[in-house]
Amino acid sequence: MKRKVFYLSDSTGLTAENLGRSLLAQFPKIQFESVTRPFIDTPEKAQNIVIEINKEAQTSQSRPIVIDTIVDTKVSRIISATECFYIDIFSTFLSPLEKELGTKSAHNVGHTPIFKEDSRVADENYMQRIDAVHFALANDDGMQLNRYDDADIILIGVSRTGKTPSSVYLGMQYGVKAANYPLIPDDLERKALPNALKDYQKKLFGLTIRPARLADIRNERKPNSNYAALRTCVDEVKQAEMLYRQYRIPYIDTTQLSVEEISARMLQRAGIERRVNSL
Amino acid sequence: MKRKVFYLSDSTGLTAENLGRSLLAQFPKIQFESVTRPFIDTPEKAQNIVIEINKEAQTSQSRPIVIDTIVDTKVSRIISATECFYIDIFSTFLSPLEKELGTKSAHNVGHTPIFKEDSRVADENYMQRIDAVHFALANDDGMQLNRYDDADIILIGVSRTGKTPSSVYLGMQYGVKAANYPLIPDDLERKALPNALKDYQKKLFGLTIRPARLADIRNERKPNSNYAALRTCVDEVKQAEMLYRQYRIPYIDTTQLSVEEISARMLQRAGIERRVNSL
Repeated sequence: MKRKVFYLSDSTGLTAENLGRSLLAQFPKIQFESVTRPFIDTPEKAQNIVIEINKEAQTSQSRPIVIDTIVDTKVSRIISATECFYIDIFSTFLSPLEKELGTKSAHNVGHTPIFKEDSRVADENYMQRIDAVHFALANDDGMQLNRYDDADIILIGVSRTGKTPSSVYLGMQYGVKAANYPLIPDDLERKALPNALKDYQKKLFGLTIRPARLADIRNERKPNSNYAALRTCVDEVKQAEMLYRQYRIPYIDTTQLSVEEISARMLQRAGIERRVNSL
Repeated sequence: MKRKVFYLSDSTGLTAENLGRSLLAQFPKIQFESVTRPFIDTPEKAQNIVIEINKEAQTSQSRPIVIDTIVDTKVSRIISATECFYIDIFSTFLSPLEKELGTKSAHNVGHTPIFKEDSRVADENYMQRIDAVHFALANDDGMQLNRYDDADIILIGVSRTGKTPSSVYLGMQYGVKAANYPLIPDDLERKALPNALKDYQKKLFGLTIRPARLADIRNERKPNSNYAALRTCVDEVKQAEMLYRQYRIPYIDTTQLSVEEISARMLQRAGIERRVNSL
C-alpha cells in the first residue's frame, strides 16, 4: 500500500521535491509514490489538479499528501480545499518572514529569477554556470590538457568513480570549472603523477570507491570483461589511493554518496568558493 | 545594508538553499548575503556555527536569518539558541507528518539516500542518472548520430541557445537521455530538416531565444565576430523558428528561463516521463 504524494509548484517543482524527499526519507518504512505537477500558475490549472487529488483521495485508503510551493494565494487556496494532508510551504514561512523583515512579500510567481534581463547578478550567474558546464564537457576525460590553467579543480580517479557527473554538476550548480582526468592502468603502474598533471598538483582532487562497487558499475558497462573484474578493480583502486597519499592529494570515497554530496564535500574540503551567488 | 542569511544542513545544503531562495525572492527590495554551511552533523560543528552566527548578530544591525534543514534535534537545538531569526524546516513539518502517517520519523541524518547499497531503487536511480549524463556528453553537439535510437529527446537549435546545459541537466536531474544537435547556417539555408534528424522527428524539441540576447551571449564568446552580429542572430533565429513550424516541432523560448525551467518545461510539453523515481 503506497501513500501518494503530490509535489505542486508554480515553477519547476524542484524545491517542493527536494524538501518533500528530505522529509519523507525520515519515514523509511512507508512506501510513497510521488508525482510532480509543475507550472501550476493559474486557477484553471489548479482546478485540474483538484480533480486529480480528490480522485486519488476517493480511490485510496488514505488521503494523499500534498507538498505545495505555489506562491499565489489565489491559486494555492484552491488546492488547500482538497481532501489531503496539506503542506503549504509559503504560507507557513512567509508571514513570519514578513514580520521579521518589516515588509510585505511580493507574492509573485515564486521561481528564483536566475536569468532575468533586468538583473545583472542573475545574468552573470547564468553565464557563469553555462560556461562552467561547457568547460566541464570540453575538459572531460583528459581532453584539452592545455586548459588546466583555467580550471578551479581537476578531478582524478580510475574509470567509473564518478568524475564526469561530478565535474558537470560542479559547473551546473556552483559555476565552478572542473576538469577531470582518468587514471589509466599505465599511469598507475608508473607510480607517479602523469606528466599532464604535474604542474597542477594543488588543483587535484581524487575520487575513490570500494572495489566491489566499482566492479558492479563496470559490469553494467562491459559485462565479464577484465576491466570489470574484481581483481582489476581492487588493484586499480589500491594504486590510485597510494598515488593520492604519495602526493598528498585530498580524496573522497564516493561509494555511498550521490553526485550532489560528492560535489558539496569536494568544495568544502578543497576550500573552493562557489562562483554563483545565490540571493 | 545587506541582511545575512545562513543555510545550515547536515547534508549538502541544497534543500535549505532552494527553499530559502524561493522565500527570499519574495522580498526583492531587501539585499541578502548568504552563506551555506553543509555537513553540520555533530554538536561540535554546530558549536562553531553558533560562534559565527552570534558574531554576525553582534556586528550587524539586524539579526541574521538562519534556514536550517538539520534533522538531528541534538544538533539543531544548539543552533536554535543563537540570536537569529530561525526557520527550522524539519521541526516545523515533521511532527504534523508523524501524526498524519501514524508513525515516528527516523530522525537520522537527513540526506536523501540516493545511493545506498542496501536500496535497489536508489541504486538504479544513481546508475540511470550517471548513464544519462554520459549519454548527454557523448551525444553533445551532433556527435555520434548513430545513437539517436537510444535518445529520449533530441534538442535542436542554433549555437548558444542552451542545448548543452539543458541536455546535461535532463540527465542529471531526471535520468532522461537527451542528445543535442546544432542547427548550423548550412542547415538553415536548406530550409529542410538535416538528414541526420529525419528519422527522429518525434523526438525533436526546438530551442529558440530572442536575437538581441543571443548576440550578447555570442559576443561574450567571440566578440565583434560575424557569428555574434545582431543581424546574423536575427536571421538564424528566424530560420530556425520557421523550420520548427514547418515540421511541427515543439519549441521553447529560453530567453528568460533558467536551465532548470527549460528542462522542466520541455519534459512537460514533450510528455516525457522522468526516468528517476523519487520517494
